[in-house]
Amino acid sequence: MIPAGKTELGRFFEPQSIAVFGSMKEPQGEGITAMRNMRDFGFQGPLYPISRSRAEVLGTRAYPDLDAITDSVDLALVITPPPTVLPIVEQCGRKGIRAVIVATEGFAETGPDGVRLQRELVETAHRYGTRLLGPNTLGVLNTARGVVTGPYRLGGNKPPLGGISYCTQTGFLTFGVHPIRDLGLPISKICDFGNKCDINESDLLPYLADDPSTNVISMHLEDIKDGRRFLRAATYAAARKPVLILKPGRSEAGARAAASHTGSLAGDDLVYGSAFSQAGAIRLRTWREYWEIPKALSLQPLAKGNRIAIVTATGGAGVMLTDAAVEAGLVVAAFTPATRERLGVLSPRLANNPVDVGPLMSVRESPFTIYEEVVPAVLSDPNVDCLTIVCHFGQPIVHVLSGLVSRISEIGKPVTVFGYGLDLPDMQKAAREIESLELPAYLDLEMSVRALAAGAACFKVKTLLQDKGT
Amino acid sequence: MIPAGKTELGRFFEPQSIAVFGSMKEPQGEGITAMRNMRDFGFQGPLYPISRSRAEVLGTRAYPDLDAITDSVDLALVITPPPTVLPIVEQCGRKGIRAVIVATEGFAETGPDGVRLQRELVETAHRYGTRLLGPNTLGVLNTARGVVTGPYRLGGNKPPLGGISYCTQTGFLTFGVHPIRDLGLPISKICDFGNKCDINESDLLPYLADDPSTNVISMHLEDIKDGRRFLRAATYAAARKPVLILKPGRSEAGARAAASHTGSLAGDDLVYGSAFSQAGAIRLRTWREYWEIPKALSLQPLAKGNRIAIVTATGGAGVMLTDAAVEAGLVVAAFTPATRERLGVLSPRLANNPVDVGPLMSVRESPFTIYEEVVPAVLSDPNVDCLTIVCHFGQPIVHVLSGLVSRISEIGKPVTVFGYGLDLPDMQKAAREIESLELPAYLDLEMSVRALAAGAACFKVKTLLQDKGT
Repeated sequence: MIPAGKTELGRFFEPQSIAVFGSMKEPQGEGITAMRNMRDFGFQGPLYPISRSRAEVLGTRAYPDLDAITDSVDLALVITPPPTVLPIVEQCGRKGIRAVIVATEGFAETGPDGVRLQRELVETAHRYGTRLLGPNTLGVLNTARGVVTGPYRLGGNKPPLGGISYCTQTGFLTFGVHPIRDLGLPISKICDFGNKCDINESDLLPYLADDPSTNVISMHLEDIKDGRRFLRAATYAAARKPVLILKPGRSEAGARAAASHTGSLAGDDLVYGSAFSQAGAIRLRTWREYWEIPKALSLQPLAKGNRIAIVTATGGAGVMLTDAAVEAGLVVAAFTPATRERLGVLSPRLANNPVDVGPLMSVRESPFTIYEEVVPAVLSDPNVDCLTIVCHFGQPIVHVLSGLVSRISEIGKPVTVFGYGLDLPDMQKAAREIESLELPAYLDLEMSVRALAAGAACFKVKTLLQDKGT
Repeated sequence: MIPAGKTELGRFFEPQSIAVFGSMKEPQGEGITAMRNMRDFGFQGPLYPISRSRAEVLGTRAYPDLDAITDSVDLALVITPPPTVLPIVEQCGRKGIRAVIVATEGFAETGPDGVRLQRELVETAHRYGTRLLGPNTLGVLNTARGVVTGPYRLGGNKPPLGGISYCTQTGFLTFGVHPIRDLGLPISKICDFGNKCDINESDLLPYLADDPSTNVISMHLEDIKDGRRFLRAATYAAARKPVLILKPGRSEAGARAAASHTGSLAGDDLVYGSAFSQAGAIRLRTWREYWEIPKALSLQPLAKGNRIAIVTATGGAGVMLTDAAVEAGLVVAAFTPATRERLGVLSPRLANNPVDVGPLMSVRESPFTIYEEVVPAVLSDPNVDCLTIVCHFGQPIVHVLSGLVSRISEIGKPVTVFGYGLDLPDMQKAAREIESLELPAYLDLEMSVRALAAGAACFKVKTLLQDKGT
């Protein structure tokens, strides 16, 4: 078996060694900034800064060119002005570097000259069997290995290690522009395709489908390079793990904006929609869904059906969640008589779904203990496929959920938690603590049930595709 | 003219004096907690705690009953067990108190006995000309006066003073359950109708329509008490200021959940929808919209048309915002030749809408100065009705917007700002600083354009209703 770091795409995400081309000038040359980010994120392998003027960069020996490096190099990161990129790619090819990230902007997105220059990059690289990511990209993140290639300061924006892999056509949906550390998003990898001159979605999908560290793929696309290949790749991936796709340019005006952004020809949205559904990819609608839905699918099992239960400390939230659940394709579970009886012992008003525990909480010495009784009863009901818990986000619920989490995982059905409160920093802290129990915590009401609905949809297509032997 | 505090509804929001019925036991008796909250929020008028066992509460003289108070009392807050409420309401009537908030739970929402007891409350109150709010309510907030009636600790969750008034049928959408202080929501008043035994939406709408401190109404309803009266009230209000309505129970399951929550008979959602649109109220869909859309309408003028411009530091966001704008009913403005020329001088790639200033920022010494040139050029284009600015949320943009804000307000068209970043606390701080300039700042992409769309829709119905002489 080829080691992870020596496959075509593995070299981008699991390189042993990285050469960096870019200004090494303090304080914010792109090259030295990228070096600093990798040190912050904990990259351990050798880094080779390329600099004619400096003997060392951040305490690491610098090299005037690739020929001065005696070892082999897995990946080159290039952040130099556009005219210098082609000769660098050529050098990389000659040195036997099989993976090059061109972060530099100013290629196909700028017009015909840029298109031509970009084509030359690819032709040159392919002569040497070298694959290119970009140009016009922030590159990649691999949380586990501390690989990160952003050319500007990331301030240690390193997420917790997890199973989500995000792929996107814009730096705007990466580690470079979103507080993934503070939001505690459990991330395996991020890949910005940039202009997709070579590596694109159809390369990433099978790679991530086979990547044991990835358990959910959230992908943003402004266009698709090769429809047939994409269909095969997406179907292959969706048969193995959830594939979520955010495809802007739904409106005509949006498609025009995409064309001017990345030179994409967006095409008819209906065609995309039917391709995604044929491939078994679940379509996302919003920026927030792209970021927040994957965590439920990554931390929890997929719902094996679409029947949701809601346990809430506030009836008002229960009504709104019910609407959101139905609109996302779920149905409100009808509890079995046994569950109704079990709940009815606590209070006759508890037997309905959504289960409003609020009134009972207000008469208890330790209000939050009600969740200890209600949650297992509801979740183990054979008519229930998934559960959203609504509660005040603070220390009491963290304590209760700590005690419940092994029972929840034993039952094996997905749970999300939506929380409210008066103090925003306290709520955010509680959310992170709940997620350290592997229970996805939401500060957005509708998202907590939409995530479960996405999981149920993914389970359904996965089963269908596997039955077909995909 | 009757002073604000002496009108029927004014007594609830602008009382000079308040009597409090409820446990005065430390540490968390409901009565003493309500007293403490009012002190925290800065209520200045006399508070009369009613207690047979204590001579004083929080340094304030206590009274064994209402008869012991020699002055007149504008408002009574009642948070005592259900069986005690009826005699208290009777006492209030005899004392000449014309406004009573019954916070106590356990009435119509619990079944037939509760319904009967609740009816008796109303009959008794009305014999004395007393109006009731509740039962089963957190009551009211009036930021300007420090009036707040929550029976549990609010921890100083006092919002900045502003023009939004929220009305809701659930405590879940009030000061008691949302971090309105930390989110900096500019709030005039909040009213929780509770079970709506007496005062309901049709009372609040005309009151808030005529309230000079309110400039936008965001309302949550699970049902409507009297359809015809509501139509008149909502039309009256919508002709004067934006009326936004979140009506859950859209799905059949949601309607059933609402029935079990507040005893509401939700009825057919299509009927509600057409009533709202006939009245000129704008319908909201989500919890987040209820909280976040009003601030744009409160801080900024309403868009006089539906043509949006987008100025963004990242093309990827521009594409997504375009979709969201179109889906919310806006169109992407086509700039005049003069504007295109003005922008073209800066860079030929700037002449399109969305205006992607990213590439220009990366080559400037002070990247954010580009906004100083582009924003006024775009906003003053006669083909543009409103603008969303996309930028990194940090000190540089706060500085630039501080310099731009007087020019923006001179042009008189609404602007929202969507921000991103790597450090969540820093982003939240920048958002609050931007809002202190009266520019609504969003950390949710789609919401920044949906808010402008809601404003444009409100302007349109307001104009139509005023033309009809409503």
